[in-house]
Amino acid sequence: MIPIESCPPPDFSAAFRRQLETLFRWRRDVRRFRTEPLSPGLLDRLVELAALAPSVGNSQPWRFVKVDEPARRAAVRDNFARCNADALAAYAGDRARLYASLKLAGLERAPTHLAIFADTGTGHGHGLGRQTMPETLAYSVVGAVHTLWLAARAHGVGMGWVSILDADEVRATLEVPDEWRLVAYLCLGYPEEDHRDPELERHGWQARLDARRFIVQR
Amino acid sequence: MIPIESCPPPDFSAAFRRQLETLFRWRRDVRRFRTEPLSPGLLDRLVELAALAPSVGNSQPWRFVKVDEPARRAAVRDNFARCNADALAAYAGDRARLYASLKLAGLERAPTHLAIFADTGTGHGHGLGRQTMPETLAYSVVGAVHTLWLAARAHGVGMGWVSILDADEVRATLEVPDEWRLVAYLCLGYPEEDHRDPELERHGWQARLDARRFIVQR
Repeated sequence: MIPIESCPPPDFSAAFRRQLETLFRWRRDVRRFRTEPLSPGLLDRLVELAALAPSVGNSQPWRFVKVDEPARRAAVRDNFARCNADALAAYAGDRARLYASLKLAGLERAPTHLAIFADTGTGHGHGLGRQTMPETLAYSVVGAVHTLWLAARAHGVGMGWVSILDADEVRATLEVPDEWRLVAYLCLGYPEEDHRDPELERHGWQARLDARRFIVQR
Repeated sequence: MIPIESCPPPDFSAAFRRQLETLFRWRRDVRRFRTEPLSPGLLDRLVELAALAPSVGNSQPWRFVKVDEPARRAAVRDNFARCNADALAAYAGDRARLYASLKLAGLERAPTHLAIFADTGTGHGHGLGRQTMPETLAYSVVGAVHTLWLAARAHGVGMGWVSILDADEVRATLEVPDEWRLVAYLCLGYPEEDHRDPELERHGWQARLDARRFIVQR
């Protein structure tokens, strides 16, 4: 192992930082997709970028499952429909009416479905950094999901994260190892429409709050 | 609530995408800091950007604790030292020797300490999206941590994520509400040295692996 010398990092410009902020602001959870497929090779490229995310102990526990078989996609859609009906039943009155009006997934039209799991049985990283906080293994996979999200948007691709699912059932549907834990089920495709504000804000479910109210000093 | 019309998102250029990849590659978990403080106002700016992260149901469950009091910082350093000694005891032979040689936190010199919690008691978002996968609340906070990490590096600031801690003890040390769950304890500051490769790779703990081996098709 030859150590690489310390060398200066790139000097990111103010113009880049402004564009990066624009990317953060425009990321969006997309649920309305055009059906045309992603450009050839683009999904693999996005996965390659996602794998640049930080991971605890450099464990790289992300496992990417491209879901293409129609029967498996249909099972995931059914899974979502059942979980979403259960979720709706937990609300009442105006909140229930509003919930029922929301579009919470783009599973029918998104050309690409990607499930991302954390391999809790991985030997990579030799357990470093996760003896007291084992949840950091799954957190590492979340970093990969978020990296993929930003990279997708920078390529004009929208992404939506579907969490209204029975995760164990998704694992069974996709026939992956028992020690893989579902972190995110993602829809990707070119967006049918674009918005700068979150869908849930636009439809009056939950406004964005000033971050300063969440800072405390100790 | 006046709906904002759909409008075209910015068209990110190939040059921007190249710089974004450079940012992903140069992010780094930094453990060696210069002691000079961050530019005035920069931490608040980074927190503001972090709060642009996605969150389940738009719940914005991130809670940012600036840790400044010397006694609290000392307690966190002690917490780390004990947990790290326990972790070392779990290795044997060459692996133990290698572990002992690694620098796994920059708690002594980093000018800024920031603890980020998930508020599991929040009413924001009204529970949407997390009935079947409640862990998505903490995952939302991980997205904020990762956003902060990228924004920091774009501003020339290094960040390190310390997970070798007893999380309940950190919560007690910082006297935050019981329903706040520690997601990340972060060190921030200007890096003493810069590397393109991860510290754990450079020192032979765990190499980076080709992402393609982690893709499966279903």
